[in-house]
Amino acid sequence: MKVPFTKMHGLGNNYIYIDLFQVELKEEGIPDLARKVSDIHTGIGSDGLILIHPSEVADVGMRIFNKDGSEAKSCGNGLRCVAKYAFEHDIVNQNRFKIETRANIVEAKVLADSGAVREITVNMGEPVLKRSLIPMTGNDTPEVVAERFDAADSVLELTAVSMGNPHAVFFVEDIDKAPLYELGPVIESDARFPDGVNVEFIEVVSPKELNFRVWERGSGVTQACGTGACAAVVAAVLNGKVARGNAFTVHLAGGDLRIEWSKDGNVWMTGGAEVIAAGEFYYDQVRTG
Amino acid sequence: MKVPFTKMHGLGNNYIYIDLFQVELKEEGIPDLARKVSDIHTGIGSDGLILIHPSEVADVGMRIFNKDGSEAKSCGNGLRCVAKYAFEHDIVNQNRFKIETRANIVEAKVLADSGAVREITVNMGEPVLKRSLIPMTGNDTPEVVAERFDAADSVLELTAVSMGNPHAVFFVEDIDKAPLYELGPVIESDARFPDGVNVEFIEVVSPKELNFRVWERGSGVTQACGTGACAAVVAAVLNGKVARGNAFTVHLAGGDLRIEWSKDGNVWMTGGAEVIAAGEFYYDQVRTG
Repeated sequence: MKVPFTKMHGLGNNYIYIDLFQVELKEEGIPDLARKVSDIHTGIGSDGLILIHPSEVADVGMRIFNKDGSEAKSCGNGLRCVAKYAFEHDIVNQNRFKIETRANIVEAKVLADSGAVREITVNMGEPVLKRSLIPMTGNDTPEVVAERFDAADSVLELTAVSMGNPHAVFFVEDIDKAPLYELGPVIESDARFPDGVNVEFIEVVSPKELNFRVWERGSGVTQACGTGACAAVVAAVLNGKVARGNAFTVHLAGGDLRIEWSKDGNVWMTGGAEVIAAGEFYYDQVRTG
Repeated sequence: MKVPFTKMHGLGNNYIYIDLFQVELKEEGIPDLARKVSDIHTGIGSDGLILIHPSEVADVGMRIFNKDGSEAKSCGNGLRCVAKYAFEHDIVNQNRFKIETRANIVEAKVLADSGAVREITVNMGEPVLKRSLIPMTGNDTPEVVAERFDAADSVLELTAVSMGNPHAVFFVEDIDKAPLYELGPVIESDARFPDGVNVEFIEVVSPKELNFRVWERGSGVTQACGTGACAAVVAAVLNGKVARGNAFTVHLAGGDLRIEWSKDGNVWMTGGAEVIAAGEFYYDQVRTG
């Protein structure tokens, strides 16, 4: 059986997208499909599988499956791709619409030019700053801003932010000298973070511009982490390094994002999404509708 | 511009195939296309690009480009995929035909069932056994069969075979205990092999069956190496472990091949080829015909 697919990426974060408005999948076959389609040797090759599906509570829904077949809750780079796909394939017919994920319902806005989406803005929600909800151990202060943090032989200043997932943010003078590989794995599994943590190093380049590098929990150094870029801007504001309400350009290894922590509390993330390929995956366990 | 493509694999060795009977490519754009299409983050993801093209000296031609855009000469797993594609897309209309590569012209045979190719046999040519042509240093014997070979702290017995590329073959009692990671990198760059060497460990399971693991020159441990499997059978015959003219099943990590060193001197390799996906790659530097 041949399954129609689209491969898309946002900042290099790449997924195979299957449109359940067009294709019918059996629930029990999805983890196997995610594993097979993601395998670069015998499948197409990707970070995982994203299903675009009808929703009863939003304009369109998405479900994300990792390479190993497990289901994830949300993904900032994937949200932008789904928004682009939904608009360009007339699943939605407004520039503003809502996307259901397994974590929450996300507002999205697209900027389109002759029907082609140029960039996408998604509401990444409000940051969570309470220490116990990051989660992080200790009782010194309710929030964790510029707190002394000893790791290996280094003394750092930690700001901790949750964007649904935990982030440990550290400021550096020169992003090219950030101790990503030295401290990333040490801090990721530090006992003070009971759920582990994503580790970000940030250089403030100007009042509206940040350089950013990330060690992702469970993945190591990656090209881009949307929630990490949001956490970086929140941390920069909390430390008084930049002013809230501006839009910041965050330079990630995989490309740029524009992030704004608006006065209403929400963090808005703007960036691109690219279609790489579209076609049919040769697979037997699926029915097409 | 959208470029029609097919992704196929043989034993997990996977390439993007572009059919130049259908698509017109500019020569100067091919290395860039190979790099872009092979990148798993922003492209489809593959070991490289193979072009299927009209030939003046054979029934169909193939050119192989690595992930880095450099051109390779030939590839056993790629040959089987090209043979399958050419037969199923009516580029050839006989079960036996010839494929032009940058190395030579290769005879191919397909076994088809209602138009679908089940397995493909290709003539991998005659092995080269002369020491200086492997190439290998030393003057002790013109051929290198069961020769004492010291590497690191081990004393081994080496048989050296070239199948267009050099192979160092060693027999082991138990394939699961083969010192692939310990000795592979040491032997690959041993000064006695001026061009480097592929390193294979072989367990003779029965008079018609070999287990096989490979450390590939420049790539390390891989799932499959077609020329290595041919060299393994030649080495087993030369050492009197099996009889020439039989068809041997070689169990590679990526799957099985059937190899025969025929009385006429040629080594024939039989195996499968799978279509993974077909569609259009979104790329701007190419014209479609």
